[in-house]
Amino acid sequence: MSEATPLVCLLHGPDQPGLVAKVSGWIFERGGNILHADQHRDLEAGVFFQRVEWTPAADTEFAAEEESFRKFAQELGMHATIGSPARRQRVALFVSKADHCFHDLILRWKAGEIPCELVAVVSNHEALRSASERYGLPFYHIPVTPEIKPAAEAAQLDLLSDLEVNLVILARYMQVLSDEFLTTFNGPVINIHHSFLPAFAGGRPYHQAHERGVKLIGATAHYATAVLDDGPIIQQDVARVTHRHGVADLIRHGRDLEKMVLARAVRWHLEHRVLVYGRKTVIFD
Amino acid sequence: MSEATPLVCLLHGPDQPGLVAKVSGWIFERGGNILHADQHRDLEAGVFFQRVEWTPAADTEFAAEEESFRKFAQELGMHATIGSPARRQRVALFVSKADHCFHDLILRWKAGEIPCELVAVVSNHEALRSASERYGLPFYHIPVTPEIKPAAEAAQLDLLSDLEVNLVILARYMQVLSDEFLTTFNGPVINIHHSFLPAFAGGRPYHQAHERGVKLIGATAHYATAVLDDGPIIQQDVARVTHRHGVADLIRHGRDLEKMVLARAVRWHLEHRVLVYGRKTVIFD
Amino acid sequence: MSEATPLVCLLHGPDQPGLVAKVSGWIFERGGNILHADQHRDLEAGVFFQRVEWTPAADTEFAAEEESFRKFAQELGMHATIGSPARRQRVALFVSKADHCFHDLILRWKAGEIPCELVAVVSNHEALRSASERYGLPFYHIPVTPEIKPAAEAAQLDLLSDLEVNLVILARYMQVLSDEFLTTFNGPVINIHHSFLPAFAGGRPYHQAHERGVKLIGATAHYATAVLDDGPIIQQDVARVTHRHGVADLIRHGRDLEKMVLARAVRWHLEHRVLVYGRKTVIFD
Amino acid sequence: MSEATPLVCLLHGPDQPGLVAKVSGWIFERGGNILHADQHRDLEAGVFFQRVEWTPAADTEFAAEEESFRKFAQELGMHATIGSPARRQRVALFVSKADHCFHDLILRWKAGEIPCELVAVVSNHEALRSASERYGLPFYHIPVTPEIKPAAEAAQLDLLSDLEVNLVILARYMQVLSDEFLTTFNGPVINIHHSFLPAFAGGRPYHQAHERGVKLIGATAHYATAVLDDGPIIQQDVARVTHRHGVADLIRHGRDLEKMVLARAVRWHLEHRVLVYGRKTVIFD
Repeated sequence: MSEATPLVCLLHGPDQPGLVAKVSGWIFERGGNILHADQHRDLEAGVFFQRVEWTPAADTEFAAEEESFRKFAQELGMHATIGSPARRQRVALFVSKADHCFHDLILRWKAGEIPCELVAVVSNHEALRSASERYGLPFYHIPVTPEIKPAAEAAQLDLLSDLEVNLVILARYMQVLSDEFLTTFNGPVINIHHSFLPAFAGGRPYHQAHERGVKLIGATAHYATAVLDDGPIIQQDVARVTHRHGVADLIRHGRDLEKMVLARAVRWHLEHRVLVYGRKTVIFD
Repeated sequence: MSEATPLVCLLHGPDQPGLVAKVSGWIFERGGNILHADQHRDLEAGVFFQRVEWTPAADTEFAAEEESFRKFAQELGMHATIGSPARRQRVALFVSKADHCFHDLILRWKAGEIPCELVAVVSNHEALRSASERYGLPFYHIPVTPEIKPAAEAAQLDLLSDLEVNLVILARYMQVLSDEFLTTFNGPVINIHHSFLPAFAGGRPYHQAHERGVKLIGATAHYATAVLDDGPIIQQDVARVTHRHGVADLIRHGRDLEKMVLARAVRWHLEHRVLVYGRKTVIFD
Repeated sequence: MSEATPLVCLLHGPDQPGLVAKVSGWIFERGGNILHADQHRDLEAGVFFQRVEWTPAADTEFAAEEESFRKFAQELGMHATIGSPARRQRVALFVSKADHCFHDLILRWKAGEIPCELVAVVSNHEALRSASERYGLPFYHIPVTPEIKPAAEAAQLDLLSDLEVNLVILARYMQVLSDEFLTTFNGPVINIHHSFLPAFAGGRPYHQAHERGVKLIGATAHYATAVLDDGPIIQQDVARVTHRHGVADLIRHGRDLEKMVLARAVRWHLEHRVLVYGRKTVIFD
Repeated sequence: MSEATPLVCLLHGPDQPGLVAKVSGWIFERGGNILHADQHRDLEAGVFFQRVEWTPAADTEFAAEEESFRKFAQELGMHATIGSPARRQRVALFVSKADHCFHDLILRWKAGEIPCELVAVVSNHEALRSASERYGLPFYHIPVTPEIKPAAEAAQLDLLSDLEVNLVILARYMQVLSDEFLTTFNGPVINIHHSFLPAFAGGRPYHQAHERGVKLIGATAHYATAVLDDGPIIQQDVARVTHRHGVADLIRHGRDLEKMVLARAVRWHLEHRVLVYGRKTVIFD
């Protein structure tokens, strides 16, 4: 008799009485053991959200349990996304020349903080090739210029498809992905924007912040969508600045914010703690 | 058919499989509707904690539902504390001369942020009598000196008993309550200590902090116990200070921390969000 | 021989070598004693900023010293604003129905945290009359509707002029002041906006923030200018929120931010720590 | 005519009228240009503190200007420490097996955030040899056990002397340095302690914090002195934790605090912004 693979499910759908009882009852009756369960209700919209993590009875096949639960959720009228800490997601890191988020994520990954398979570093520049290779990570240089962008994106999509990538992280990639790219990839893309969105969307946010004289700078991790800097926000944080800080100081302080915010968002995503709902996220932390 | 009074229960006891299913099943089968449920497991100690808030079926009597649930919890081997947002707790505010937490709590109470009956302001000084009366609150002056402390505490206990007080808040009361007082009152007493405990326990914490040259000052709200400044911590916060701050500046900045931290702790307590467990608290926020 | 009145000067103008030496030398040679001096250079713009606080030699007349210093500053090509902790500014508080900033500022003022003469509470509603009067503060009800706004503003301006008001604080006043008002008053007006500007300028910022799904809410104290929510920012702060917070929770949490941020800005202003420079502020804290 | 090397001086001594004027006058008269000047007075103790950064007249020799200023300061009765951004300090990093502060400091150093010469990584374990060498940094393995500690410290001191090290950073070194070591080295040693000192001094602070049930964990960077965890504090910060965090979570969250706090302290030290004064520090940031 062997220990079964644990499951994590993110559920949401129209609220109705007894949902907590039904879900926990279903798991309990089949001999499962709930490790964590957290739920939320949007009372205005009448929507129920749940994250539930459980170990099924010994010798249960993951695929069978997943399939059964999905059917059960469907009968409840709920949308379910199912994963497992035992099934590591395959991640591609898109970078440009800035290396702070790149090093930070990789070192956290090596320290076991970010549970995934890091299968590719993709860049439009050669700058981080040798650092990637020193970390033992495959590096793919796919140049991008306005003229060849469609071809470059096609090459990127081929690579993601070949490597069976589940998640793309834009770790200061500095390029806008086209609608076509997002639609074709059809998976989550996490971006880090170097401002407290919705303030200072678009280019050169630290210059904008300096110009406006704000007293706090921020960083925002969000899912990329077709509208620039407008996708569902996963995490944000800020740091205090003063009139003594020039743009270069904002950029330097901002790097720490960007690293922390992006790493937190990626970890939450990989642990199946983020449920996207319209233009917003529910975070089960 | 009338809307039933909602219940909030704080449960804890030895962990066992199926607890979430059993509790939610019990409520659902009786026609109740869970509004919120949150649980926690201490994996090392094997203890399960839950806060569950539900509306029973229409026409259910609060006392009957409370009694039934208590029996059910007992059968599960769990300890249960049951309250209701509809049954407001009776609170006594103990103050001395400092008035910042006093005004802050009363103004929040008037704004509806602190759901309770404020039945008494008790003080060892006359300083806040007129302010209390302007707020329409009964003020009780019970002088305390080392010689008459036992008699003073007896008078306080009589008052708390007469007024059927459920919660005492020490809003910068500046007197240590004796073991006998705490044992006889036998209810929760929330204190605000003006440091980041366990640093700077005891007297004159801002002077201690200034002397040590710390870069952050703090405040801690905790349940009072027989050991001074050692009870279970409910909430803490800190603020940044510099070498430019003298003791008077620390005191001034600290007032804001004390107000915020105490108000947050009191609100959580009154909403049945705080479960005391050994020397620690579980906060279902 | 009597102790002279201390002076605080805010200086700014084109940078040039020796400014610190010249200013401190001028004070020292006349027998003055510098209590605090802080300076800043905007290297890009070539502008020098200084706050200097000093006690002149005994028996020096404040007005004479002020006049001499102003001339000296002019010779250096600097713009100077001069005040004194001993000359308390006259402040009018503009309120509407929301009372949290109102109570907070007045209680801080009574506690000595906000050094000024509070000469009037002005409101377009009667709601805070009795509270004002209980605090011993004169209350002026000047109704404002779109039709009578010009007349209402004229009445406000007459009042400010009669009372020799130096500073207007909009403590959640909820009305936009016209250009004409600002031009005629010709003095500082501090407003508290309930968002992290420039995000969510305009109306109902907490609703906007909830809609966008941000993970932090903010408050911003700034000088009012002709362009709504666009004046120089004095202070900002944020608080963390989650998907569990509805708009009402954001409003409640926001009240604490608004109180803290406005009080800090007002204190800095009254202590002559804020130098407005273009669309930005230099804060000598 | 060549651009002169800028100087930074940290001054302190008995307060007296005219110090700001005298120091700035001395620099101005010799054709120097003050870039930054910041001062502080401890009014209780009657001590004056100043940090002043200036470029001397062209063609001035650094050593000559340093010598002249030192004499001038002596005549004022002030203690002066003089450095220059142009004269990079020589730093040794002491590490054990934990690598988060190690990577963080080195990556910041490579990014230009930490202006110094990193001349040695010293460790009692081989664990970080290959990582050090990949960064191009010389690694020295000096094993330490209770029996051979005196010999090990002698070897460390020889190395520091040979390499002309000005600053030792204990980046989670996990060994207590003896009094003899500190006395012989006779230079600054910056340590990072993984708690909010003075809370949880000594060993296993995260275990202590978990046991006590605090709601915030902290990290403290301080100068090492003969009394463990008692030296002058340079920087501190905290992060919020909940009952859901086990010791392993505190350790993980704590790593981010430790990195940020140590990096900030090291940068301030290397920029001559930290003036040690008794058991405290004055930070000119």
